[in-house]
Amino acid sequence: MRNGTEERETSRIEAFSDNVFAVGITLLVLAIKVPTIPATPEPGFLTKYLVSQWPAYLTYIISFITVLLMWINHHMMFQRVRKPDHALMFLNGLMLLPVTLLPFPTSLLAVFIAHPQARYAAALFSGSYVLIAGLYCLVWTYITRMNKKQGVEEDAVRLHRQTTKIRVVFALYLGTFCWSFIYPLGCIFACFLLAVYLSLPELRNTAE
Amino acid sequence: MRNGTEERETSRIEAFSDNVFAVGITLLVLAIKVPTIPATPEPGFLTKYLVSQWPAYLTYIISFITVLLMWINHHMMFQRVRKPDHALMFLNGLMLLPVTLLPFPTSLLAVFIAHPQARYAAALFSGSYVLIAGLYCLVWTYITRMNKKQGVEEDAVRLHRQTTKIRVVFALYLGTFCWSFIYPLGCIFACFLLAVYLSLPELRNTAE
Amino acid sequence: MRNGTEERETSRIEAFSDNVFAVGITLLVLAIKVPTIPATPEPGFLTKYLVSQWPAYLTYIISFITVLLMWINHHMMFQRVRKPDHALMFLNGLMLLPVTLLPFPTSLLAVFIAHPQARYAAALFSGSYVLIAGLYCLVWTYITRMNKKQGVEEDAVRLHRQTTKIRVVFALYLGTFCWSFIYPLGCIFACFLLAVYLSLPELRNTAE
Amino acid sequence: MRNGTEERETSRIEAFSDNVFAVGITLLVLAIKVPTIPATPEPGFLTKYLVSQWPAYLTYIISFITVLLMWINHHMMFQRVRKPDHALMFLNGLMLLPVTLLPFPTSLLAVFIAHPQARYAAALFSGSYVLIAGLYCLVWTYITRMNKKQGVEEDAVRLHRQTTKIRVVFALYLGTFCWSFIYPLGCIFACFLLAVYLSLPELRNTAE
Repeated sequence: MRNGTEERETSRIEAFSDNVFAVGITLLVLAIKVPTIPATPEPGFLTKYLVSQWPAYLTYIISFITVLLMWINHHMMFQRVRKPDHALMFLNGLMLLPVTLLPFPTSLLAVFIAHPQARYAAALFSGSYVLIAGLYCLVWTYITRMNKKQGVEEDAVRLHRQTTKIRVVFALYLGTFCWSFIYPLGCIFACFLLAVYLSLPELRNTAE
Repeated sequence: MRNGTEERETSRIEAFSDNVFAVGITLLVLAIKVPTIPATPEPGFLTKYLVSQWPAYLTYIISFITVLLMWINHHMMFQRVRKPDHALMFLNGLMLLPVTLLPFPTSLLAVFIAHPQARYAAALFSGSYVLIAGLYCLVWTYITRMNKKQGVEEDAVRLHRQTTKIRVVFALYLGTFCWSFIYPLGCIFACFLLAVYLSLPELRNTAE
Repeated sequence: MRNGTEERETSRIEAFSDNVFAVGITLLVLAIKVPTIPATPEPGFLTKYLVSQWPAYLTYIISFITVLLMWINHHMMFQRVRKPDHALMFLNGLMLLPVTLLPFPTSLLAVFIAHPQARYAAALFSGSYVLIAGLYCLVWTYITRMNKKQGVEEDAVRLHRQTTKIRVVFALYLGTFCWSFIYPLGCIFACFLLAVYLSLPELRNTAE
Repeated sequence: MRNGTEERETSRIEAFSDNVFAVGITLLVLAIKVPTIPATPEPGFLTKYLVSQWPAYLTYIISFITVLLMWINHHMMFQRVRKPDHALMFLNGLMLLPVTLLPFPTSLLAVFIAHPQARYAAALFSGSYVLIAGLYCLVWTYITRMNKKQGVEEDAVRLHRQTTKIRVVFALYLGTFCWSFIYPLGCIFACFLLAVYLSLPELRNTAE
């Protein structure tokens, strides 16, 4: 069990991270731009515009679900922490960097999805996920070592299963990143499927 | 009663949701644009501009009150939760998606309120509310089932009354959505009246 | 003393309000625009631009200090609350509306400070403060009545002094609002002086 | 030890500050602009654009790490506080002013890094850090005095070491500020090295 001060320490790191997740997830909407009414009247302008914005909706939904899953997993990760130290605060903060960065590649991909150089936008998009998943692995490993040093007992089987899962997710995102250079649209749908696939256990794992 | 860990779990979900509500409600202001001073002096430019922005003020107020009511009701909903699970975290997160999306239809409707295609902007605006109200029903039902499985005792009469209220609100928003295609301005005022009407019990329900 | 549930209720209202204050205070920076480099080289472009932005800095500082003082006072106000009800949640939320709106009049005044119609921008700016101060009075009065009904004992002398202070602040902001139509620049400096003046007791009131 | 009310008071100041740090750190991303596709097709437009944005990435990373370190240190600072007063709330709020301001100089420097007047943008950038570091010293000193008056016992050796460290950081930022007028690019890299250097002890200070 944690004592009062340690509890408060962990809570404050979680609260800061939760805030960053919450603001980041809310800023994603800025990727969906509101048009100005053109000077010359054009019938069906709004419907055409709204339909043409489908890449923005798609990248928005992918990023939203991904940040949401990250938040849930971050939650799970910090339940393991007993006595946080400064290095954990710093590493956790670094992991938040690509999260706060996400509105940029999300918007960029929405604009350049049909551009001849779409693969670079897709690479930046999936690359951000690779970075987040990679830093997530790093923080996870750090906590494992920290807990060993502090003598915190953990369920070895469960820990091993979770560690494997996190590494597999990292490898899958690395795969979408490599794919982005060959077939950008495919990479985006892979990111989407990955987000949906990773949500399934959350939904399956219902109250029993 | 909840124990410490469950209390902390519920608190963290609430805190994340509250953050998203708070950031979402504050980002709505971005729908009200600051003009640039025109190169050629034009007497009364500012007053004309400020008056012409009335749709932005109206949609802003509707969205603000609606998000506020959602937050209050979310509050009420999570007081029922004893032992949150991953699926609840995920469903609750999904419910926040249309909340974070709101600045987009709010701005869009403010711009296109007098456009021949205003009905699509109004449909997107009221459609977001339908989505939120629908997901709210979903999360509410999920909590009801979860509480039954966990053996949490609830006041059946009160629960039934609240469930009915939530479904009626969903039906009313569905009504404004259908109306938006026929008479967009009417739909906006219906959303406004609905927001005001739903605020009344909050105000009536004073300290006794 | 509050019990656990009431404590949690009050905390959640405070947390939501604090979030809105924090996001609102941070969004104020969007009023200070970053220029694009002009196509034709112009010596001293940046310094001229930075100097020309003084109204944006001034309105930013006034709004920042005012929101900060509001947050501190909101803090003081909610220390009085024992058992919050729905009406308080709603009224408190309404009070946050002009707070979230502040980035708009702050930017508007920064742009139109030297415009012939500056008085309307100044009126909107100080008018927002009047609205906040007025709603603050309303929530304060509501808490006073609620506490009476709930039988919460309060120090009558201290309460009376605080109530008077809040009403005087409201009257002072009403004064700056009226003045804005006659002499807009004067109104802005009055808002600035008022913000500084209201900060003084906070600073004087040091640890003893 | 703190009692319940004081604990709650300190927590609420921390929560407000954490929120401002979190929103501020997330708004930094707005400095990285998404381009619009040019009307005339230009091969390699996106890659050229992405490469040309390196100053935005650099200033983003510097500001992100700096705000993160500030947050960690703010954390450390408020662990010393036993009984916060209004003046501390106000001073702490003032310290947050340059933090919320950071997106402006960060964007400005990203745009003007190669401009003949880059030194002014660099001065504003490093000047913001000087202001934050200076106000940090002020709040630190205030807490030291407050704790003395309240009779809070502190480890004199550790306190002296920390005070010295904070003053040295302030002096180092003052140095980068002076340098910005002579060699702006050097100043930026100095800010970067300083951010990295200040992160090292956080990483070294691992669980033992």
